[in-house]
Amino acid sequence: MPDVEILLVGDQARIEPLVERIAPTAERIGFFHCTEVVAMDEKAARSLRSKPDSSMKRCAELVAEGRAQAMVSAGNTGAQVAVSSLIMGLIPTVSRPGIAVNFPGRHGSVTTVDVGANIYCRPQHLFEYGIMGSVYQRYVEGKENPRVGLLSIGSERSKGTELVKETIALFEASNLNFVGNVEGNAMLTGVCDVLACDGFAGNIMLKTSEGVCEMLLERILHSIDDLRLADRPAVAAVIRKALSAYDYSAYGGAPLFGIKGVSIICHGRSNALAITNAIRAGADFARHKVIQHITEELERNKALLDPAGLEN
Amino acid sequence: MPDVEILLVGDQARIEPLVERIAPTAERIGFFHCTEVVAMDEKAARSLRSKPDSSMKRCAELVAEGRAQAMVSAGNTGAQVAVSSLIMGLIPTVSRPGIAVNFPGRHGSVTTVDVGANIYCRPQHLFEYGIMGSVYQRYVEGKENPRVGLLSIGSERSKGTELVKETIALFEASNLNFVGNVEGNAMLTGVCDVLACDGFAGNIMLKTSEGVCEMLLERILHSIDDLRLADRPAVAAVIRKALSAYDYSAYGGAPLFGIKGVSIICHGRSNALAITNAIRAGADFARHKVIQHITEELERNKALLDPAGLEN
Repeated sequence: MPDVEILLVGDQARIEPLVERIAPTAERIGFFHCTEVVAMDEKAARSLRSKPDSSMKRCAELVAEGRAQAMVSAGNTGAQVAVSSLIMGLIPTVSRPGIAVNFPGRHGSVTTVDVGANIYCRPQHLFEYGIMGSVYQRYVEGKENPRVGLLSIGSERSKGTELVKETIALFEASNLNFVGNVEGNAMLTGVCDVLACDGFAGNIMLKTSEGVCEMLLERILHSIDDLRLADRPAVAAVIRKALSAYDYSAYGGAPLFGIKGVSIICHGRSNALAITNAIRAGADFARHKVIQHITEELERNKALLDPAGLEN
Repeated sequence: MPDVEILLVGDQARIEPLVERIAPTAERIGFFHCTEVVAMDEKAARSLRSKPDSSMKRCAELVAEGRAQAMVSAGNTGAQVAVSSLIMGLIPTVSRPGIAVNFPGRHGSVTTVDVGANIYCRPQHLFEYGIMGSVYQRYVEGKENPRVGLLSIGSERSKGTELVKETIALFEASNLNFVGNVEGNAMLTGVCDVLACDGFAGNIMLKTSEGVCEMLLERILHSIDDLRLADRPAVAAVIRKALSAYDYSAYGGAPLFGIKGVSIICHGRSNALAITNAIRAGADFARHKVIQHITEELERNKALLDPAGLEN
């Protein structure tokens, strides 16, 4: 990524020697010193008040001030959502931010929002997630008319919760390419490019996928051992590679949708590849002016968004 | 299953020739003739009223009258839940029936209830699912003190919906071996034997697992093609077998918990193996007197179950 500059935010005295040891000749790497850090289990609201010089907060400020075009963190997710919302600010007309994960579907990625930021959704929130996911798929993934689905437990209109049924009406009245209710399996096998869901259901989808992959890898590798293949290492490598695409959380970053700045959330156990992918996601998000397009698209659907402005 | 007799319920003139063609010498197969059938997309309540001689209804009646010890169907799930509840009746103190699926976890099966019968759960319902799953694991799977988890989006008490938080108190006050909040990945990797969840979240877990398996099978087989292995067929067979354990819906039957008779629900696309497994599940359920044990265990926790009897 020759056009990307990295600013490392944290305790410079601790970070700089590490960078020098690993990449002494690295260019385009800068430092922004700060003295505090938000712990992984800390309450988001409390850390914002009590730690004015935390790396999490400073990162968000750098984006809000235009000194950085994107923030990437593998720290406390709740705190990242909070600082991004409060310091960068919400896009006008967005009620609640949502975390987006790109699931590897049969016909390319499926942008799924929300996977954990907002567990009490209203129809308005799901509708906004669909709009934002659609913009992302159009401008970042290059899909001309992204198909938007709504997560439910059956493809029929009559299936699902009241929340699902009320949300259908909003999508149908919009300019989106709405394909109706979509189940977890259909999403992966390719019926939509965007999936709107509440944060509880979305998070369960994400974690279940991770668990299934982990267990399958174990079982398959174990079964292959019994075969006593000469080329077992090659087979195992191929299988690991195929499965790695489903380890979303460790694989790359999840953009936070609905914020006036770019904020990419990484899993706490991210490896170097995951952080690299997250940086790329942040750069893509900024380069394709996703936030500007989201703002315009929300504006186009303004009549359907809460007219009284009471929704939040 | 030498101790199992099968009674085929439906249009005898159509079924009998099929049985004669496939298994002309088959013993222990009988017929119960009826003239109507509930269609897959029919409304459950309507079919009960308008089709008094449907195979679905007759099946439930045979169990209610003690002429069969279990019912197995791959028909309309909603109709099966309705006839089982209305004709066999609910166990006293059970508020809502729940569909149980045995997920293949690292340390044996994990009985997960509910996966789609009850999408609006109250704490009471989830608590009952935990009790019933625990009885099933003890008497059918032989686990002495089954570990019961509650599906959520984090293992911490503070994570999850109000429903989850209120349910924790019931489990903690009970005699169950409650292990707390469990995420979809942790369930599969072995932290619990029973998982209580609402039918929306449970169904999403189930469908997502199916989708991940389907996609992984495609990807892995495709990757293996590129290797040009001499023993590709053997490798492919091993991988298909490892993945098949996760195709829950096609693999076997899901018991309906909370009913005074045994009712095993199969996926509409069940193959011969799935139906065989479902028959075995029904026989096990009856043989181990699971319903009697569930009734006794609910009785033991009666003080925690809705005291006013207003819950339903």
